[in-house]
Amino acid sequence: MNTSFAIIGTGAVGGFYGARLARAGFDVHFLARSDFSYIRDHGLAVESKDGDFVLPRVNVYDDARTMPQCDVAVITLKTTANSALPSILPSVVKKDGLVLVMQNGLGYEQEVAKIVGPDRVLGVLCFVCSNKAGPGRIRHLDFGHITVGQYTDDGSPGGITSRIREIAGYFTKAGFAVETANDLGTARWKKLVWNVPYSGLSVVLSATTDMLNANPHSRRLAVDLMREVCDGAAACGHPIEPAFIDKMVSYTDTMPPYLTSMKLDYDAHRPMEVESIFGNPVRAAQASGARAPLMEMLYRELKYLDEEVEKFRG
Amino acid sequence: MNTSFAIIGTGAVGGFYGARLARAGFDVHFLARSDFSYIRDHGLAVESKDGDFVLPRVNVYDDARTMPQCDVAVITLKTTANSALPSILPSVVKKDGLVLVMQNGLGYEQEVAKIVGPDRVLGVLCFVCSNKAGPGRIRHLDFGHITVGQYTDDGSPGGITSRIREIAGYFTKAGFAVETANDLGTARWKKLVWNVPYSGLSVVLSATTDMLNANPHSRRLAVDLMREVCDGAAACGHPIEPAFIDKMVSYTDTMPPYLTSMKLDYDAHRPMEVESIFGNPVRAAQASGARAPLMEMLYRELKYLDEEVEKFRG
Repeated sequence: MNTSFAIIGTGAVGGFYGARLARAGFDVHFLARSDFSYIRDHGLAVESKDGDFVLPRVNVYDDARTMPQCDVAVITLKTTANSALPSILPSVVKKDGLVLVMQNGLGYEQEVAKIVGPDRVLGVLCFVCSNKAGPGRIRHLDFGHITVGQYTDDGSPGGITSRIREIAGYFTKAGFAVETANDLGTARWKKLVWNVPYSGLSVVLSATTDMLNANPHSRRLAVDLMREVCDGAAACGHPIEPAFIDKMVSYTDTMPPYLTSMKLDYDAHRPMEVESIFGNPVRAAQASGARAPLMEMLYRELKYLDEEVEKFRG
Repeated sequence: MNTSFAIIGTGAVGGFYGARLARAGFDVHFLARSDFSYIRDHGLAVESKDGDFVLPRVNVYDDARTMPQCDVAVITLKTTANSALPSILPSVVKKDGLVLVMQNGLGYEQEVAKIVGPDRVLGVLCFVCSNKAGPGRIRHLDFGHITVGQYTDDGSPGGITSRIREIAGYFTKAGFAVETANDLGTARWKKLVWNVPYSGLSVVLSATTDMLNANPHSRRLAVDLMREVCDGAAACGHPIEPAFIDKMVSYTDTMPPYLTSMKLDYDAHRPMEVESIFGNPVRAAQASGARAPLMEMLYRELKYLDEEVEKFRG
């Protein structure tokens, strides 16, 4: 039988990966909110550097209770909307189905494990530049590869389980490069090494990644923040080799000028994923004995900005 | 003979204090740059909460070499313009005259002492809300009291010298409340306790003082920054009582919503006094063994913003 997917959140990430899974022949069901009627009437369009395509008819729902229970649920909500998960998840995934936490930052596999148990929870990190170009329209700018790892309650390496290989197979079939992580925690912290400085400083300093790298003061600050992320990771039992910092800075030097999705959220007065990318890592680092003063300062600056912007929303 | 003053820099601070000294009957000579012709033709106007007044004719110069040598030189340039001092000072102050460094932050008495020798250098801290409302027009919003202290080369307390009492007398006669500082270093660091968090965060977070105090994250960050300033002060031999932090936060709670002069400079694309208020204190603290990570981060953020804004200037 064809594997079925429930895509929980049809935005820049869920819309893109879900459409690619559907194009590859999987049975994909999309949960959408603001774009529901548009997608129901017009389907999903993907403008991609790998080739544009349209899915004129997709299975789309505006209520999780009307969705079929699928083999795999893919959580692509913004983490700021995660409070809806306890009421969504049980209706959209089979009792023995897998749940992929395809979200930014730290701490959400844990929440999902409380709902469905730890064994069925996998973390998926996506390395992708995509955004929503309009209702039901996804623009895929660059990258797209993912890393899959097994969640464990105590944060120990979950190893390369058969579940990981199963999920890797689906995404490979959909045309993505897939890496499997022996230790999901290390993978998540490694992603934070890039995300913390560039997402945070892009908002606070109103800058693209190339601007941050070109100025000696922001470049130095990015490196200092990366060091703190690595110290936090090590304190939490996920050591990262020091050369990784240089690698991330050099990698960013080669990227085209890039406005982070956190900065796009901020400029559009949408909630930023401050707890996911900053609050949870800072608290995890400090609970394990790391001090993380710079990360904490950036966290507080972003909380201020996020709460100020909130006043402009309804 | 009537005491003569050379006001070096006729802006929000020099224009205000100089005009008040002139109104009190002292012989005041103003060095001006952009406003020179206007002040020559129309004099100086002060709109003040203590009462408006106009000086229709003042002694104003656009070239220090044409000024008389005065008993007291008052440096009210922005610290970002201090490189002009070695060529200005010798022409505007008598060989035994006093030089008042009436500037923000740390490290400038030292520069002036290299030009005129340490004994003749006094530091003056002004606690004033004033700005330039137009050419030759100063708006005085609040406060105005000053603190005077003797500079010493080794940073040790200079005591209450006869020179301090002399200067205090002049400013008292001009209607200002004057405090005398036994230890200029402690006075300067104490002013930084307020200036570092509120000036810095007002720019980075685009906020007034009341907004920074109302949000729990920025309020906490302000306190954490104040603690670091106190640690830096103590490392430099100028301990500040811990209760002073609470006092500064509560004092700010009672202030009317206030946009710092650093934020006004930033918004007008003028150079900010980043080295004076951040760079010099951070280096002084670190040279004395304090770590000051938050101050250094704020310094780097401000350097980035200052250098970006510089691109918009000529």
